Amino acid sequence: MTDSDNATTPGADRRESEDWWRTSIIEMTPGVIRYRGYPIEDLIARRVSLAQMIWLMTRGELPSKGQGALLEAALMAAVDHGPQAPSIAIARMAATCGVGLNSAMASAVNVLGDVHGGAGEQAVELYQDIAARIDAGGSEADAVRAGLDDFVAAHGKVIPGFGHRFHPVDPRSAPLLALVDEAARQGAVSGRFAAIGRGVEGHLAAKTGKAIPMNIDGATAVIYAELGFAAPLARGLFCLSRSVGILAHAWEQTEQGGRIKGPLPRRLTWTYDGPARRAVPAQDGETQ
Amino acid sequence: MTDSDNATTPGADRRESEDWWRTSIIEMTPGVIRYRGYPIEDLIARRVSLAQMIWLMTRGELPSKGQGALLEAALMAAVDHGPQAPSIAIARMAATCGVGLNSAMASAVNVLGDVHGGAGEQAVELYQDIAARIDAGGSEADAVRAGLDDFVAAHGKVIPGFGHRFHPVDPRSAPLLALVDEAARQGAVSGRFAAIGRGVEGHLAAKTGKAIPMNIDGATAVIYAELGFAAPLARGLFCLSRSVGILAHAWEQTEQGGRIKGPLPRRLTWTYDGPARRAVPAQDGETQ
Amino acid sequence: MTDSDNATTPGADRRESEDWWRTSIIEMTPGVIRYRGYPIEDLIARRVSLAQMIWLMTRGELPSKGQGALLEAALMAAVDHGPQAPSIAIARMAATCGVGLNSAMASAVNVLGDVHGGAGEQAVELYQDIAARIDAGGSEADAVRAGLDDFVAAHGKVIPGFGHRFHPVDPRSAPLLALVDEAARQGAVSGRFAAIGRGVEGHLAAKTGKAIPMNIDGATAVIYAELGFAAPLARGLFCLSRSVGILAHAWEQTEQGGRIKGPLPRRLTWTYDGPARRAVPAQDGETQ
Amino acid sequence: MTDSDNATTPGADRRESEDWWRTSIIEMTPGVIRYRGYPIEDLIARRVSLAQMIWLMTRGELPSKGQGALLEAALMAAVDHGPQAPSIAIARMAATCGVGLNSAMASAVNVLGDVHGGAGEQAVELYQDIAARIDAGGSEADAVRAGLDDFVAAHGKVIPGFGHRFHPVDPRSAPLLALVDEAARQGAVSGRFAAIGRGVEGHLAAKTGKAIPMNIDGATAVIYAELGFAAPLARGLFCLSRSVGILAHAWEQTEQGGRIKGPLPRRLTWTYDGPARRAVPAQDGETQ
Repeated sequence: MTDSDNATTPGADRRESEDWWRTSIIEMTPGVIRYRGYPIEDLIARRVSLAQMIWLMTRGELPSKGQGALLEAALMAAVDHGPQAPSIAIARMAATCGVGLNSAMASAVNVLGDVHGGAGEQAVELYQDIAARIDAGGSEADAVRAGLDDFVAAHGKVIPGFGHRFHPVDPRSAPLLALVDEAARQGAVSGRFAAIGRGVEGHLAAKTGKAIPMNIDGATAVIYAELGFAAPLARGLFCLSRSVGILAHAWEQTEQGGRIKGPLPRRLTWTYDGPARRAVPAQDGETQ
Repeated sequence: MTDSDNATTPGADRRESEDWWRTSIIEMTPGVIRYRGYPIEDLIARRVSLAQMIWLMTRGELPSKGQGALLEAALMAAVDHGPQAPSIAIARMAATCGVGLNSAMASAVNVLGDVHGGAGEQAVELYQDIAARIDAGGSEADAVRAGLDDFVAAHGKVIPGFGHRFHPVDPRSAPLLALVDEAARQGAVSGRFAAIGRGVEGHLAAKTGKAIPMNIDGATAVIYAELGFAAPLARGLFCLSRSVGILAHAWEQTEQGGRIKGPLPRRLTWTYDGPARRAVPAQDGETQ
Repeated sequence: MTDSDNATTPGADRRESEDWWRTSIIEMTPGVIRYRGYPIEDLIARRVSLAQMIWLMTRGELPSKGQGALLEAALMAAVDHGPQAPSIAIARMAATCGVGLNSAMASAVNVLGDVHGGAGEQAVELYQDIAARIDAGGSEADAVRAGLDDFVAAHGKVIPGFGHRFHPVDPRSAPLLALVDEAARQGAVSGRFAAIGRGVEGHLAAKTGKAIPMNIDGATAVIYAELGFAAPLARGLFCLSRSVGILAHAWEQTEQGGRIKGPLPRRLTWTYDGPARRAVPAQDGETQ
Repeated sequence: MTDSDNATTPGADRRESEDWWRTSIIEMTPGVIRYRGYPIEDLIARRVSLAQMIWLMTRGELPSKGQGALLEAALMAAVDHGPQAPSIAIARMAATCGVGLNSAMASAVNVLGDVHGGAGEQAVELYQDIAARIDAGGSEADAVRAGLDDFVAAHGKVIPGFGHRFHPVDPRSAPLLALVDEAARQGAVSGRFAAIGRGVEGHLAAKTGKAIPMNIDGATAVIYAELGFAAPLARGLFCLSRSVGILAHAWEQTEQGGRIKGPLPRRLTWTYDGPARRAVPAQDGETQ
């Protein structure tokens, strides 16, 4: 194949390719690997943790100790919600289909989409919107009310991060918020998003007359917002976290065995509600 | 980043990149697209079919009419086996998780691995192995027996392409073989792999004393072997075929609605057989 | 695990599970497979084509001959756009990483998202919006102008289905539209969406003073709209179509060999523009 | 759809479904979530780290402090190897195609197959094989020699975990082994797999006359073997680790922008080496 532009100067192609893939994450030369400027051997020797590394890779700097600990808690708390969750079920099914753990993980992480994996991202957006209203001069109560009203008008009544189909009270929320409160007392974070999250919870209860408590997505979103993560990274971080449960279940299923394991046991099956048996019309050109 | 090799001559980078991605499938210049040498506008105007195009793209030449018709039948017959199949179930679950149809399809196609999607490939290998034994001078009966014995010794008792967990007789096999027989009578294919497939079926029945009839994978493998496809392409072609059912089910589920739909309805759930509730040990450095 | 609802009646669980997975696509009992009511053996014997089957599975009925031929052409024409497209490049890279063709296909199909695979879907939506304006009494010219103005206001200046980064004129558009015209003359389709597509093309040229011709996505969108497909299926059908090229390139790369083949040849590499080398701060609790 | 087995006893379906999905990882009732018996609120309050949680989920018990620290280091050290790696390149390309971070991560993790992601798993197998030979009474030198000879006979000359295409010496190996040595001195691990890994390195150097030093896969495999992980989990853990880099690069590319970004800049393209332009033969039934 030729290209319409044939004039070239020495090195132009290389410069173009170097600009095509441009990163400030990793620098490599033979024998040298540095992440954001830190030599890998120093990061290992200094015993930088996985959570700190996640922060460094996505944010560009190492977190403070308090920041790293909060991120660690959020990542740790959301690893799994059982084989009834599509992501986990898919990992287990995949493990019976003859693919490697990498592919079982991929099929599962892939479905952490807007509905199954996006609530944290959406909750961060909601909190940030409310924070911006406060910054613009509103009271917290007004900002929460207005933020929720606008959210419902745009997206409907399901408030991301609040209420749960299975848990009347999500057992992960309170202990995570307790960590945020402690970090706020120590000055590691401001605590404003914990207040906003609780404000949303209170407003929903007052408005609907029933408890719609903060769930794991609402609680981790408080942490991610406190830590200054961009909203889309809340989903990315959830994917990292849930990948742990996905791996564990894929591996447990591998050890249990099974071949081509579908969603239901054989005797429990599906309903067909389409047309009854019928004849295929003769195709055009077919000998009658 | 710099590279250890700094000496360069004009055009060397471009030549290197052109060699890095090298293909005989598609040629493009601005305004021109040719597949295997055929201008796309001519392929459209000549009404080349999708199945013919699949052949052209994977084999390099257009098939004869009879070859194209056999490929078409094999692709058409294997599109779906219902929501109890992991691939289909995954597509439906994914459609409730807030991802596009492309991602629902990807998660599903991904699990067509060695066990769920590899039987056709393995059956082609088995047939080709038996054919090679015949070419080396064995009788068909001896070649079938020896081929099966070696297969069982290497891979165990599950013979790919024969027997079915659900169907006592797979309703797709006989009509597909009938098409092969017809194509053989017309000289489009040799018919030798249909004979080998039937030989395997007969041998299994004689040896075990019960019918272990050819299933869809065994029948499409006969077709792919007759048509000269390399064994791994049998899996690839099955992926194309099953993608049709995957898309249809993902779309049907999308229209049915549902959010984060797991494998089982809520009331039907899983068994936990791990440790009973226990206390987390105090972590090192933790204030007691 | 126990559930809060323990009262059960015989068969209730089965009924619940049967309703959980409900489909009108496929009916199965042992030895029987019917798609939309048609026994598979009849579909095979009647030589129903792959394109007809795709229609049956996604629409519920078999297409007329003219409809099936148009669908076939749209699917056939979009199979590949070379290794510079991310979907194709990913398939080739994956083939060097030690995964099966199913996984190479999955990673590639997965990226046919809103930007890389969604133009057809968006173009169908645009055409349908313009058609609705005509149905509401507007002239075609007014409807095109208003539809485009609203689209640009909502989504920006990139009009899906028109213009191409590489091809001044996309060689696939004219022959596809010629097939639509022929089908309209024969009464297989109305031809109204071909007119709308050409209206958009004319309006863009008049407004901008330069040709922004219909591309493959705009042309296949005309066909999908003429055939009555819902807009999201335009993306799904494109995924089926592009899967052919994805498979062909994954297979070609497999035969070429290569291990862990990255996007660029070794000597052409990336630019690092992050921080220069720096020391990792002492971690908390670390011996100084 | 009906099933051949219609006789049912109350609760039989539920029991069957509960056995279908069976796990010892997670126990849930409304308001309660326990992993391996530990209530999630206790795990959060005790500040269990992400690495400890990964161990708990995949192994069933919490690690000792020393074990957890080694796992943490192995996970942290392998997060990224730059946009020249297919996994990272795919994540970046996907980010320009209009899919969420979850799907960008999925397409990328998916290619960590036998070749791109399997070296750690294979190295653990090699080390375990050598350890078994020592357990059976061989000297370490004999066991290393015999283990390598058998490996080469079965799999060819590429020894997983040793040598690197880019780094003459992998800067990650020595500091990781130093951590293993320290953990062995403290009794957290035995140190035998570090000795075996160094034995392999020494044998390869002596046999080939050139240094083929341990790389990141060989070093993390030492850690995973010391910690008692099954070999396939070495790949799973690598997938978790590399997911960090995959996320970081997908996010960086998202912030850089770009639409449908292929592997090479526009001017650097591919070579077509297929047939020259040719005419499509008239199709059967076509009007001449």
